[in-house]
Amino acid sequence: MGGDFGPRSIVQASIACLCATPSLHLTLVGQPSLLDELIAGYPAVDRARLTIVPAAEVITMDDRPSQALRGKPDSSMRVALQLLCDSKVQAVVSAGNTGALMALSRHVLKTLPGIDRPAMVAAIPTQRGYCQLLDLGANVDCNAEHLFQFAVMGSVAAEALGVVQPRVALLNVGTEDIKGNQQVKLAASLLQGARGLNYIGFVEGDGLYRGEADVVVCDGFVGNILLKSSEGLASMIAARIEALFRANLASRVVGALALPLLRRLQADLAPARHNGASFLGLQGIVVKSHGSAGVQGLQSAIRRASIEIQENLPERLHGRLEDLLL
Amino acid sequence: MGGDFGPRSIVQASIACLCATPSLHLTLVGQPSLLDELIAGYPAVDRARLTIVPAAEVITMDDRPSQALRGKPDSSMRVALQLLCDSKVQAVVSAGNTGALMALSRHVLKTLPGIDRPAMVAAIPTQRGYCQLLDLGANVDCNAEHLFQFAVMGSVAAEALGVVQPRVALLNVGTEDIKGNQQVKLAASLLQGARGLNYIGFVEGDGLYRGEADVVVCDGFVGNILLKSSEGLASMIAARIEALFRANLASRVVGALALPLLRRLQADLAPARHNGASFLGLQGIVVKSHGSAGVQGLQSAIRRASIEIQENLPERLHGRLEDLLL
Repeated sequence: MGGDFGPRSIVQASIACLCATPSLHLTLVGQPSLLDELIAGYPAVDRARLTIVPAAEVITMDDRPSQALRGKPDSSMRVALQLLCDSKVQAVVSAGNTGALMALSRHVLKTLPGIDRPAMVAAIPTQRGYCQLLDLGANVDCNAEHLFQFAVMGSVAAEALGVVQPRVALLNVGTEDIKGNQQVKLAASLLQGARGLNYIGFVEGDGLYRGEADVVVCDGFVGNILLKSSEGLASMIAARIEALFRANLASRVVGALALPLLRRLQADLAPARHNGASFLGLQGIVVKSHGSAGVQGLQSAIRRASIEIQENLPERLHGRLEDLLL
Repeated sequence: MGGDFGPRSIVQASIACLCATPSLHLTLVGQPSLLDELIAGYPAVDRARLTIVPAAEVITMDDRPSQALRGKPDSSMRVALQLLCDSKVQAVVSAGNTGALMALSRHVLKTLPGIDRPAMVAAIPTQRGYCQLLDLGANVDCNAEHLFQFAVMGSVAAEALGVVQPRVALLNVGTEDIKGNQQVKLAASLLQGARGLNYIGFVEGDGLYRGEADVVVCDGFVGNILLKSSEGLASMIAARIEALFRANLASRVVGALALPLLRRLQADLAPARHNGASFLGLQGIVVKSHGSAGVQGLQSAIRRASIEIQENLPERLHGRLEDLLL
């Protein structure tokens, strides 16, 4: 029921994913009459693979996590997470209120042993491919232990996505040992001693985009600012390019040729907008789609959830955490 | 003597500024034989407005602040700051080691009364013009009081640059009161009560680039990551655009027309690269030019120093701080 475009684009993305992946089963949680009506627009859909589970309430983007936890026991978000907890589904994807989704996920699913706080991770485009950046805002006050746990979780997630021996780095204001705040310096010393982790040291903001690491770890305050400022900058550059090619007749002619190419590039680059952000560290798979993601973004989020199911990500995380932390 | 391109581009930028501004006097501090040789390449220069003061040592980019403070008493940086302290010059501009420049500035010039820590501020391009972002990395562990002081200093600096009633915002992970870490929440309550400050609340990373505020305040860790990741992303987008227009013959033709326009845009957008970063909160004007700025960036930094002299920025800051803090 969530997201800036509501169930309409969620139904559309679901049906596209069902068509593309014959082994996929999807359960839509929300108001059945509304969902049935939207699904009726796609008569060819295989209803045997598309279930509806009713939920009377909807968590809005303005609801505080505490309201989501206590005030709405029959929200679509909570019902979906309960299905996951009861093993009726294997993963939950939501485009709704991030804070509420995190609070409900922790409450319903619980964290893995050894994990104090789940983290949000997303794939950020770099000059050499992608890096997994975490935390993206679930934890705004992190100590060194939390950063260490994020590094372990990010590394396992990158492996699950096919990266061999992922290069793990801490985001910092410089690459020398003396640089950084207390948490980062202490996290570095914890990571230097971690077996089975390819820790490569500090990376700076520009190094992230140069692709110097496969996993970049920071606290949620910094990660959220980095992600959103990157989105803001990318949008600003796109707007300036459009304006540039409208400035006069000559540039408009060039623009008519160049803009279609540039717009495709823009879609490739918008960080995280077209990729789901995973919640790592829970006893279950939860993927958050960007609220304004649209159909393609939702399909990406569903694909990310599918990969995490195939790779059995929570189990893998659990095993690695036992090796490293316990 | 500092910067990625050394004294050659510093001399070139100095002479361009002297030509453009007949009232300007510049003092170059460093190795006289080298500087004289470089200046000799510009026989038309008005030597009455270009002085050389000798300094035997050079602080390298690898020197730690402690080495700069104790190990090199005759460095060009320190001699320049001493000239400012002795009122022989009215401002110092450097393209050298940032940490060393900050440590020496604090040591030689001292901070203004009421200021615990100087901050670095630079103008960041936004969709509506520019915003002053601070701190950019001088202080990686800030409490609420520091953020409050940065807000006051940023507001006065924006006024000096011509902004009427600058909109001052705290950088945060959301705009609601409950969002953020402890320092940010506490700084917000301090700023809400500050007389004579146009505090508008929280701004997010994307809001910064949308131009929602004229002054954006954050701790130096966050500011440095934001600035460098923005530079990294802008470079990545530029590289992708170049690659896009080299992909095949058709796109190469389009690129031949579009790239000159886009490269001009890129120069406009590169955050802070073409603007000096000011150190605010010192008893004197110090402007740091980006190490890789080149001649145009150095000219910008010299212009920023000139404006701060005209506006008597440290005096104005001192007056405002007395009103607000003491």
